[in-house]
Amino acid sequence: MNKEETPKEPKEKKIHDRKIEENVIFVGSKPPMNYVTAIIAQFNSSGSDEVTLKARGNAITRAVDAAEITRNRFMTNLVVKSINIGTEAVTNEEGRTSNVSSMEICLLKKK
Amino acid sequence: MNKEETPKEPKEKKIHDRKIEENVIFVGSKPPMNYVTAIIAQFNSSGSDEVTLKARGNAITRAVDAAEITRNRFMTNLVVKSINIGTEAVTNEEGRTSNVSSMEICLLKKK
Repeated sequence: MNKEETPKEPKEKKIHDRKIEENVIFVGSKPPMNYVTAIIAQFNSSGSDEVTLKARGNAITRAVDAAEITRNRFMTNLVVKSINIGTEAVTNEEGRTSNVSSMEICLLKKK
Repeated sequence: MNKEETPKEPKEKKIHDRKIEENVIFVGSKPPMNYVTAIIAQFNSSGSDEVTLKARGNAITRAVDAAEITRNRFMTNLVVKSINIGTEAVTNEEGRTSNVSSMEICLLKKK
């Protein structure tokens, strides 16, 4: 038997992973301005150059609204780095699965 | 005075311009399947490799739905070539202008 301990993942790693996930904003059913402020706060607090918006179903329109309002009114140095669309399977309370469209908008801060 | 007639634009030119515009499908408030059939018909009738979906406001979600349904269920050889978002100024009946988000999805048929 090997007596060496399996090296554990250092805690810093986890914190780092969480930081990456923190640059994602999930857009839901709140008013678009809530997400605009969330985007601005994210750029200012994280120090990151990128923030990704994720949305599903009807919230897709709201994600586009939030990105456009932020870009045009508050942070004119933002560019849309990439946009991806996809389909996700969602299971409702009755156990039925249905497909819903999803979208990711990656915003990049120009230097 | 120059007796030469100013050469008129040939009619074929106009028809050609219209054909380019025909590869654009405007997504509105109809059910998504209407636009799915429109996309398929457009690819089959025009012989073009590209079809662009344009949508504004709440129809953005429907455009994503139509693109995803077409890609996953009917034409699996389609890829999303590009997605652009923007803002358009819309004037309502009372003469007030408001901004609305817009989106263009360009679908490309792989050979």
